[in-house]
Amino acid sequence: MFPAFLDLSSLKAAYASGLSPLDLVDEVLARIAASDDPAIFITKTPADDLRAAALDLLARAPEANSLPLWGVPFAVKDNIDVAGLPTTAACPAFAYRPERDATVVARLKAAGALVIGKTNLDQFATGLNGTRSPHGAPRSVFDKDYVSGGSSSGSAVSVASGLASFALGTDTAGSGRVPAAFNNLVGIKPTPGLVPNVGVVPACRSIDVVTVFAGTVGDGVAVRKVIDGYDAADPFSKKAYPVRLPASGLRIGVLAGTEREFYGNAAYEALYDAAIERAKALGAEIVAFDYGPFREAAELLYNGPWVAERLAAVKDFIVSNPADFDPTVRTIISGAAKYSAVDAFEGLYKLEALRQKTLVEWEKLDVLMLPTSPTTCTVEAMLADPIARNGHFGRYTNFANLFGYAAIAIPAGFDAEGHLPAGVTLFGPAFSDDALAAFADALHRALARGMGRDRHAGLPEPSRISADDDGLVPIVVVGAHLTGMPLNHELTRAGGKFVKACRTAGDYRLFVLPNASPPKPGLIRSPGLDGRGLAVEVWKLPPGAFGRFVQNIPAPLGIGKVVLDDGSQISGFLCEPYALEGALEITELGGWQAYIQGRR
Amino acid sequence: MFPAFLDLSSLKAAYASGLSPLDLVDEVLARIAASDDPAIFITKTPADDLRAAALDLLARAPEANSLPLWGVPFAVKDNIDVAGLPTTAACPAFAYRPERDATVVARLKAAGALVIGKTNLDQFATGLNGTRSPHGAPRSVFDKDYVSGGSSSGSAVSVASGLASFALGTDTAGSGRVPAAFNNLVGIKPTPGLVPNVGVVPACRSIDVVTVFAGTVGDGVAVRKVIDGYDAADPFSKKAYPVRLPASGLRIGVLAGTEREFYGNAAYEALYDAAIERAKALGAEIVAFDYGPFREAAELLYNGPWVAERLAAVKDFIVSNPADFDPTVRTIISGAAKYSAVDAFEGLYKLEALRQKTLVEWEKLDVLMLPTSPTTCTVEAMLADPIARNGHFGRYTNFANLFGYAAIAIPAGFDAEGHLPAGVTLFGPAFSDDALAAFADALHRALARGMGRDRHAGLPEPSRISADDDGLVPIVVVGAHLTGMPLNHELTRAGGKFVKACRTAGDYRLFVLPNASPPKPGLIRSPGLDGRGLAVEVWKLPPGAFGRFVQNIPAPLGIGKVVLDDGSQISGFLCEPYALEGALEITELGGWQAYIQGRR
Repeated sequence: MFPAFLDLSSLKAAYASGLSPLDLVDEVLARIAASDDPAIFITKTPADDLRAAALDLLARAPEANSLPLWGVPFAVKDNIDVAGLPTTAACPAFAYRPERDATVVARLKAAGALVIGKTNLDQFATGLNGTRSPHGAPRSVFDKDYVSGGSSSGSAVSVASGLASFALGTDTAGSGRVPAAFNNLVGIKPTPGLVPNVGVVPACRSIDVVTVFAGTVGDGVAVRKVIDGYDAADPFSKKAYPVRLPASGLRIGVLAGTEREFYGNAAYEALYDAAIERAKALGAEIVAFDYGPFREAAELLYNGPWVAERLAAVKDFIVSNPADFDPTVRTIISGAAKYSAVDAFEGLYKLEALRQKTLVEWEKLDVLMLPTSPTTCTVEAMLADPIARNGHFGRYTNFANLFGYAAIAIPAGFDAEGHLPAGVTLFGPAFSDDALAAFADALHRALARGMGRDRHAGLPEPSRISADDDGLVPIVVVGAHLTGMPLNHELTRAGGKFVKACRTAGDYRLFVLPNASPPKPGLIRSPGLDGRGLAVEVWKLPPGAFGRFVQNIPAPLGIGKVVLDDGSQISGFLCEPYALEGALEITELGGWQAYIQGRR
Repeated sequence: MFPAFLDLSSLKAAYASGLSPLDLVDEVLARIAASDDPAIFITKTPADDLRAAALDLLARAPEANSLPLWGVPFAVKDNIDVAGLPTTAACPAFAYRPERDATVVARLKAAGALVIGKTNLDQFATGLNGTRSPHGAPRSVFDKDYVSGGSSSGSAVSVASGLASFALGTDTAGSGRVPAAFNNLVGIKPTPGLVPNVGVVPACRSIDVVTVFAGTVGDGVAVRKVIDGYDAADPFSKKAYPVRLPASGLRIGVLAGTEREFYGNAAYEALYDAAIERAKALGAEIVAFDYGPFREAAELLYNGPWVAERLAAVKDFIVSNPADFDPTVRTIISGAAKYSAVDAFEGLYKLEALRQKTLVEWEKLDVLMLPTSPTTCTVEAMLADPIARNGHFGRYTNFANLFGYAAIAIPAGFDAEGHLPAGVTLFGPAFSDDALAAFADALHRALARGMGRDRHAGLPEPSRISADDDGLVPIVVVGAHLTGMPLNHELTRAGGKFVKACRTAGDYRLFVLPNASPPKPGLIRSPGLDGRGLAVEVWKLPPGAFGRFVQNIPAPLGIGKVVLDDGSQISGFLCEPYALEGALEITELGGWQAYIQGRR
């Protein structure tokens, strides 16, 4: 039996229990045939080809779950090449048959995943709503009157409907996030440059990003880790190192004042506020910030020279085939012809000036949390006012790729009637993708109402993401570096974070170092001593700061391992023994703070 | 007495000997009056104003040399604002009187430096030769028939002539480097974004860089450290951390095969080859690389959409005042009107594709060393063919700011007749400015023939840049981490470099740790012991690697400070004393290697 929602953990369990990828193929084909939304796919993988792919997998990796995505079905937005299937970008006249897989598809196939088909989209990925396609509009899985969101419309609906475990989207303005919000899914939008775009039809080539729709953050990140990594054939692919975020006490920026705009959708506003409360309950510090410079950057994306990138992508085709365009898409793209190179550079200047303003906001924040979309609407309403309503959906998404951020969209529950879902998106600095995922997963688990259409599915534990590995080095401080002591600023200035106050094991002795300024203790281990332990603090430092900190410690002090009363061994201050000969022993005071207070 | 070349060290010595900034002002005014090049300045600081500035300095910092640039005279390219003097960009009709200093000028004044005047330039900084100005062409200080180089022509000549200790230039294509080469000067071209451009007339705003001309790398870097640092008012200003280069064994990329092009100037080619030999003698590894992708990027700067940035900078003025432009400059800038926003983005795509190709070359290199200019020519020859000959000068410069590199141009000596000088430029990755300076200084000292016009001036020692400050953390290893020992790979894999084998001070004792695997010693200091010291090694690690290394050291070992036999104190292995009770003492063997060899 396969679960209604095909998350990776459940699928792996199904395979471990003896089911085969051929069973999975039959199940997926049956589900596709039974689907009540005819607009999800532009091209389905032919049944025989899908069975052949499963057999090929069994031939090259016979053992169940012996590859990272062994027998995992996925859908591919139809602006991403899959060898043998046409790429159309939802424009039949534009279609071509690629000989090679896009880099991301090739990596997924190598990891054992199976392509079930190419999904519908707003034509040339120009839109956030899903109605701009000659193949019809996929619908929200919760109400057929409502839009699915776009441009990665079919990809999101395929996953939310249980046809695929995950799907690839693309995201320039917000196409990998808005459809996640409208279909109770996670949308992983990597930092631009982290995942290569080779074999992807460009929208705005300098800021296009391949994304992942999945049921959990863990599943989405697992897929992203298969598809990410430098590819020299993509001019914008980057070699980069992960950027860390604090493992606890995350400072989360939220909308305030006139920048709170939900276009009258009180249910969405309430769900945003509920998500803020949940974040606070998880230990985050909620900080109001000025969304203004981010909003201005968001407005640049369609009301500025970046639309010329969309024109660059189809410049010959739009001249030869104007009638083959969706009218709204044609209006948007052809409007770019008015921009000069001077306009393009002036747009860049404006963006960089806005970036400097955002840096002031980032000083007080670690991540942003915004509504993924501030509202939704019916297909009918969208078609009646396609530019303005689409603009509403992008209010809190359009800036992300211009500024090069990582983003993860998570479900934020359903309105009070249980009718439609909303989502929130967490944004972090470039290449904070992994660090962001830890909190996104925790928050999603706090907010989750099932996965996709299956509102009652429990989020599988194995997809949980650990926040512990923050890369920081813990250090036990004993004397002048304790909170409130004269050298504590050396820790805080170096980016140090307080972890806890605690005690050493019982076999340590503490002395006052002669002639130290400021006064400092010397800690020394004496196995056999049965004391009460000494009051110390644990802090954490980035490795480089820790290295420089150690480098600057004067003799007779140094850093060894200190045993705490819970038995753990942590880097911490020790003292060379020669310096303690004849020194005043203060072990019985129980710690340095008691000694200093007694002196006052 | 002031020296002919006003380098910072000599000037500081003159002030220390009792001369006053008022004496300096008189000297500089006399030198300007006696100058044989009438085209250096567009506006000289009035004598009374210059004296008033010196008096103001004496009032606010009476003690000699009590500010970093106390009483140091400098010239400012006339596209950089100095409050009270007109900014013309060498276009009189464009002139305005700024109320505020450019950020860089304000920082220099605050550091005690004195503005002597605004210097001539290729109009709107559009050129590399110095002839495109209504104020005449400054000339090479070595032959009045020859161009000075540009666009920062007057700035370079003012320093080379001994009128100023340093001068500010700007560099988009190579304007801070080519005039350095033609006038026996150092040109410091910071990484784009390191030095703010607030108050600078833009050329290509996204890649303009303020530069420093000086007699030595040390002087240039000292000035750059005054002017660098984030300024939010510049959209392209960056907050950045220094990037390191290897402290020794630098892999230097040099031209090879058909990419070696000197336009028939055999003397320049010979000087380039001589510089390569000198670099090799200094311990560098010389590596031939493919300059192709760099050359293609260089060609994009004038034969692509970036000229639209020049048009953006003067777009209204060129319409209202076309006759006020230098004809060549007008031809170049007005030609940009043909580029669309699509062209601009397609130019960006091409640049980023070339960047990926350069990454393949960078894999085998740490820095590039190229001829600053492959040739020079007379003013007459330049005027006869201004676009092509200017293009020759930029062959090895134009790519640098497009790719965001740091660069330092240094003199490379004179042709065989001792007639004209040439230069070489070292290029490093973004924000490697300081790391690059250490090798540039060493190479300059190996190649130097005086400073500026003063061919016989010795390079002052105090301006020498130490290569020691490489940011690496030295660490004394005692046992299993020594060369050839089982844990030595922990150092080499972490990027560690061997520094030296040496001995500790005489008061250390060495023990064999019981039950350690692999075998390890414990080192402990015993003041009063009069031993021979113990054989140890010093290694160096990057701070982060050092931090992780310390973090992974198990008890009873730790890192404190070890005193060597030369009295220096360096981070190194120590041992908690409890672990040595009853342990075998091997102090008399003189070190761990002797013990291990004895066991075999």
